Amino acid sequence: MSIDTAPSDLRVPSEVADLVFRAARTVNTFTDTEVTEEQVRAVWDVVRWGPTAMNTLPLRLVLVRTPEGRERLVSHMNEGNKAKTQRAPLSIVVAADLDFHEHLPRLAPHMAGARENLAGQQAARERMSRDNAFLQAGYLIVGLRAAGLHVGPMGGYDAPGLDADLLAGTAWRSIMVLNVGTAPADVEGVPASHPRQGRLDFDEVARTL
Amino acid sequence: MSIDTAPSDLRVPSEVADLVFRAARTVNTFTDTEVTEEQVRAVWDVVRWGPTAMNTLPLRLVLVRTPEGRERLVSHMNEGNKAKTQRAPLSIVVAADLDFHEHLPRLAPHMAGARENLAGQQAARERMSRDNAFLQAGYLIVGLRAAGLHVGPMGGYDAPGLDADLLAGTAWRSIMVLNVGTAPADVEGVPASHPRQGRLDFDEVARTL
Repeated sequence: MSIDTAPSDLRVPSEVADLVFRAARTVNTFTDTEVTEEQVRAVWDVVRWGPTAMNTLPLRLVLVRTPEGRERLVSHMNEGNKAKTQRAPLSIVVAADLDFHEHLPRLAPHMAGARENLAGQQAARERMSRDNAFLQAGYLIVGLRAAGLHVGPMGGYDAPGLDADLLAGTAWRSIMVLNVGTAPADVEGVPASHPRQGRLDFDEVARTL
Repeated sequence: MSIDTAPSDLRVPSEVADLVFRAARTVNTFTDTEVTEEQVRAVWDVVRWGPTAMNTLPLRLVLVRTPEGRERLVSHMNEGNKAKTQRAPLSIVVAADLDFHEHLPRLAPHMAGARENLAGQQAARERMSRDNAFLQAGYLIVGLRAAGLHVGPMGGYDAPGLDADLLAGTAWRSIMVLNVGTAPADVEGVPASHPRQGRLDFDEVARTL
């Protein structure tokens, strides 16, 4: 196929725009189909090329697979997020590494002294790591969907409690939890997703200067 | 074409992964080719479907096109970002709307009272709008590249100065500036991009629990 011939201003096939954005839905119910390590590695191998400020790449992932790990994760989720997290084939704690600057001599060799300059600036590193991890989380959600997976992103959990437990011994700070798997069309009459909510139109979000 | 037959764990054609991530580069030099309003609208019509917390959709855009608007934008950029911003066919000020909650009765009708609850919580709104605008910026960069455009994201500018000038009269706060256009292979021997920097491997960013 050619990427130049899609019948729109996009240069990718219409099916791709549907798979990743237009027909994609936040999913709360999954089939038993496993999400393999190879699938997640393949996604990372693509989305790691997305740009970040100074090539800081602060995104970190904890793949929760074991029954014991899942129990610990669920214990920190808000009530409304416990059941679906209990049943997801894979849950990913998406985190920002406060110590991303340790990698800068390798990731940004053109920025001389960046590691040393940032070492004493914890507040700046908190903001940079959180901002750029959210940016990379956007790439990650796109990449998981491009692998044919369905995702259910959640912010409803006790972040300090989760961080002190699942991220103990690291400088990682969670920014969201993603349930990942394959959605059924519906489960015993219950749809896998909530009814779709509206979006803002271009003229509501953009102005020209 | 079928989206099921790509020879990898991805469900999208390899050319798409190249266009959007693997072969995509941050670009600093552009040809004169215009970026049309229709192209940016087409991108928004796709990426607006990306998920945000509570469907808050805080991303806002200022498309800088006029010579006067460009002069004002450039005046706030760091020295190293002035020349490339001066010459980009389109620059977009990417912003987060602190007053995103005003839209929640329409965007999240299932969250009764969300607008009223958030009205008195400016600090929470600052964090939610910034986090989710960065998430949506990830979708936006993916979408612009999927439209065949090249982007140059920049964080190096005087944010308070830019906000007080270009975003005056709004509750929008800039999070980055994107130069957008079409990259030449090179310009008089000068490549349009810096040499590509490395990325972290999966085993450096992920652990399993």
